[in-house]
Amino acid sequence: MGLDDPNKDSILKYEKKPTLVTIPRKSFVIAIINGQSHEIVFDIRLKSIVSDNVHKGYGFPILTVEEQILATQLPLKYPPFIASVHKRGLNLSELVCAGFTMGWFGEEKSSSRILTVDCFLKESTANFFVRPISGITMVADIDLMKIVEYHDREVEVVPTAENTDYRVSKQSPPFGPKQHSLASHQPQGPGFQINGHSVSWANWKFHIGFDVRAGIIISLASIYDLEKKKSRRVLYKGYISELYVPYQDPTEEFYFKTFFDAGEYGFGRSTVSLIPHHDCPPYAQFIDTYIHSSDGTPSLLKNAICVFEQYGNIMWRHTEAIIPNELIEESRTEVNLIVRTVVTVGNYDNVVDWEFKTSGSIKPAIALSGILEIKATHIKHKDEIKEDLHGKLVSENSIGIYHDHFYMYYLDFDIDGVHNSFEKTSLKTARISDGSSKRKSYWTTETQTAKTESDAKITIGYAPAELVVVNPNKKTAVGNEVGYRLIPA
Amino acid sequence: MGLDDPNKDSILKYEKKPTLVTIPRKSFVIAIINGQSHEIVFDIRLKSIVSDNVHKGYGFPILTVEEQILATQLPLKYPPFIASVHKRGLNLSELVCAGFTMGWFGEEKSSSRILTVDCFLKESTANFFVRPISGITMVADIDLMKIVEYHDREVEVVPTAENTDYRVSKQSPPFGPKQHSLASHQPQGPGFQINGHSVSWANWKFHIGFDVRAGIIISLASIYDLEKKKSRRVLYKGYISELYVPYQDPTEEFYFKTFFDAGEYGFGRSTVSLIPHHDCPPYAQFIDTYIHSSDGTPSLLKNAICVFEQYGNIMWRHTEAIIPNELIEESRTEVNLIVRTVVTVGNYDNVVDWEFKTSGSIKPAIALSGILEIKATHIKHKDEIKEDLHGKLVSENSIGIYHDHFYMYYLDFDIDGVHNSFEKTSLKTARISDGSSKRKSYWTTETQTAKTESDAKITIGYAPAELVVVNPNKKTAVGNEVGYRLIPA
Repeated sequence: MGLDDPNKDSILKYEKKPTLVTIPRKSFVIAIINGQSHEIVFDIRLKSIVSDNVHKGYGFPILTVEEQILATQLPLKYPPFIASVHKRGLNLSELVCAGFTMGWFGEEKSSSRILTVDCFLKESTANFFVRPISGITMVADIDLMKIVEYHDREVEVVPTAENTDYRVSKQSPPFGPKQHSLASHQPQGPGFQINGHSVSWANWKFHIGFDVRAGIIISLASIYDLEKKKSRRVLYKGYISELYVPYQDPTEEFYFKTFFDAGEYGFGRSTVSLIPHHDCPPYAQFIDTYIHSSDGTPSLLKNAICVFEQYGNIMWRHTEAIIPNELIEESRTEVNLIVRTVVTVGNYDNVVDWEFKTSGSIKPAIALSGILEIKATHIKHKDEIKEDLHGKLVSENSIGIYHDHFYMYYLDFDIDGVHNSFEKTSLKTARISDGSSKRKSYWTTETQTAKTESDAKITIGYAPAELVVVNPNKKTAVGNEVGYRLIPA
Repeated sequence: MGLDDPNKDSILKYEKKPTLVTIPRKSFVIAIINGQSHEIVFDIRLKSIVSDNVHKGYGFPILTVEEQILATQLPLKYPPFIASVHKRGLNLSELVCAGFTMGWFGEEKSSSRILTVDCFLKESTANFFVRPISGITMVADIDLMKIVEYHDREVEVVPTAENTDYRVSKQSPPFGPKQHSLASHQPQGPGFQINGHSVSWANWKFHIGFDVRAGIIISLASIYDLEKKKSRRVLYKGYISELYVPYQDPTEEFYFKTFFDAGEYGFGRSTVSLIPHHDCPPYAQFIDTYIHSSDGTPSLLKNAICVFEQYGNIMWRHTEAIIPNELIEESRTEVNLIVRTVVTVGNYDNVVDWEFKTSGSIKPAIALSGILEIKATHIKHKDEIKEDLHGKLVSENSIGIYHDHFYMYYLDFDIDGVHNSFEKTSLKTARISDGSSKRKSYWTTETQTAKTESDAKITIGYAPAELVVVNPNKKTAVGNEVGYRLIPA
């Protein structure tokens, strides 16, 4: 369940005249009732159901935490699996299991919500992800909450626990280099104010929202224009709409691992508490949020979001030594505002940052951390490899399977208003053959405005291009369009 | 002039047994004698000339500061230019001139070293670069030190000085957002030691050199391996060998502006003093260097290099919530070492960073700052544009001419020894049509080792690829090659 946002038009009207305009306050509930996926909208003011539609297309509701916990307990009571564990000489009490969603490869629409359950050894290390019990495939129907498919194909060695525990408390010498510490302090306090869900900092104002599926949502971001003496809208709404992580191993045990982390697990649901002084600097401020259990009970997630200023880079500088008898040296230090959450989906931790600069730039950034997903193998050395492992032998008996991480951003720009266009400027080589210049060639630019959404589809990186969102109706003093450039990292 | 490095073999021998091995100590001098470019090598111990060769190929010695100063004074005494200035109603005392090298477009080898001199208005702004006196072309022969070519094609308007001065002392309201400050302090002092030109920090040791042409040079960079209990070489030598900045305006006034900032002006010669607390954090340490005038007199360049630790990012983190009844939260803060110089060639300031991480990564980075090069135009508004301006109308009467900045890095890796190879790993799509998997396709990898230098030429960005420098003779425990990945930003 979550907040059912009023439509954009209503929000913009309400934003202008909050005392005069009433907007609906609604929540949505996605519920499975008698095996059907209901999309229910509830009016909080009226305390009544506004709509209740049954979803009949492809796809299923997001997994709940409870479903995952129940599903991962199934193997421990499933006799064929217990037999497999004993056959391997392992102990049931040493196991920890996790649920993995399965990709769709063109099969007919299935009516059952299924999850594969993989088990790992947690004995003598917290780092169970690198100790998979490979060779077994278990599929659970999570509506029936039972194992519906089971294969024990082969007994594969479990990679060693040695040197895998990452906990500081479990480390033993030799220790890595000891770093000197930094004591830092903002004598005037932080330069930003958090008022409810609204943040104001320097020339920026924006709203921080939180959604079960998307996680953190930045909205209504506006920058104050000193010369025009008014606030100018930049971004109506921005968030990570999906993280697609397809693994590239076609074998029975792995082929289906093509995860949609937001749609299947929930980026909001998988947001974790930040660790003060470690995930965010000592002077950061934290915002809590609520997540809910499958019966709707809210539970507090402490320190879900942190907000802090980052210092240290050069914003702009110039040394001017050309004017005779005069040396000019100017350098401005950059202070940026960072809004951070961490989303941990299984083994991977996604550090999701939104960075605001006084120049007007917004820099969304991802830092990926956590643990590699490992597939076990009997192979201990590269020399033993006879065929494509679909990954890299990262350690004895351990393959890091090839995969990608595709982060998809939803960015609804409202640059100086809602009517924006997407422009692509390409570089074009011009050849000179008429002797009009000593140059043989040069480049110039060619700009295309996307007329449809599919027109705006681009492949990034194949050729130099400037991707810009503009407001074609707002011009600068010299007649250029007002816009923001999208710079892929 | 500069240090004539002993060859690599001698340096590596000397490094191993500094008390037993004597290496030559030589300097080089590039001198113009009777119109010929001499490359002279001088033995400092023997106080004698080792070799003296006359360069007969294309190209000329790097410009000296004195030559540039003299050349930029020529217009002020050149009657045709004085007449042009008066014709425009300008005052000679308001002018400042700068020398611009000219590109080579296939002409026959010329025997004269030439420089174009452009003049600007410095009246009522320090920002003369945005106030060019366009329409005039002046070419100076810097060996004869006289103007040898002069064209006054058209009287072009000079862009306004209004709102162009960047000096903090010249600003007037409305001021931009006021930022809160950060007080920072390293209670144990810095975590690095500088001993002469050698730096040791955490698990790193490296040498900082300085060259008139290349600027800062990082060499003999090694990382300490805790498990092997020994230092392992990573980089023999790294520096920016060239910065190529070709402008894309084929007209008479601009076509030749295709600068080689290192080769023509000198990245070392153009290194500027860093501004403490602004260009580097308060707890940075500075290293001075020497540059020399054209007669060889050394002059001190204070604060040419700064070294500091940067805090604040997450090095690694993981929240583990899958193990029943146990929550594990681990997060390590990253501390990196940054070595910084700023190279200002005319209007542009290049912030050149070498960042070292305890993980073993080295991250060279460039931040480009300073001022755009402007061409004047009578055009005040985009609507007046009738033909390709070869740039963007950035302000009334001001075109920011299209151009690129290509930074070239010289990186001589010595990963675990001198014999390294360059490998390119490409992704290859594999299609499945035999029904062996539900997947229709997946990707796998294909690695090629460059056999020749030209084999190693690649175009970055056209397709996903992993570019790796490896030591094919050194393997990890599981048989992987030891190597470093090159990650284009």
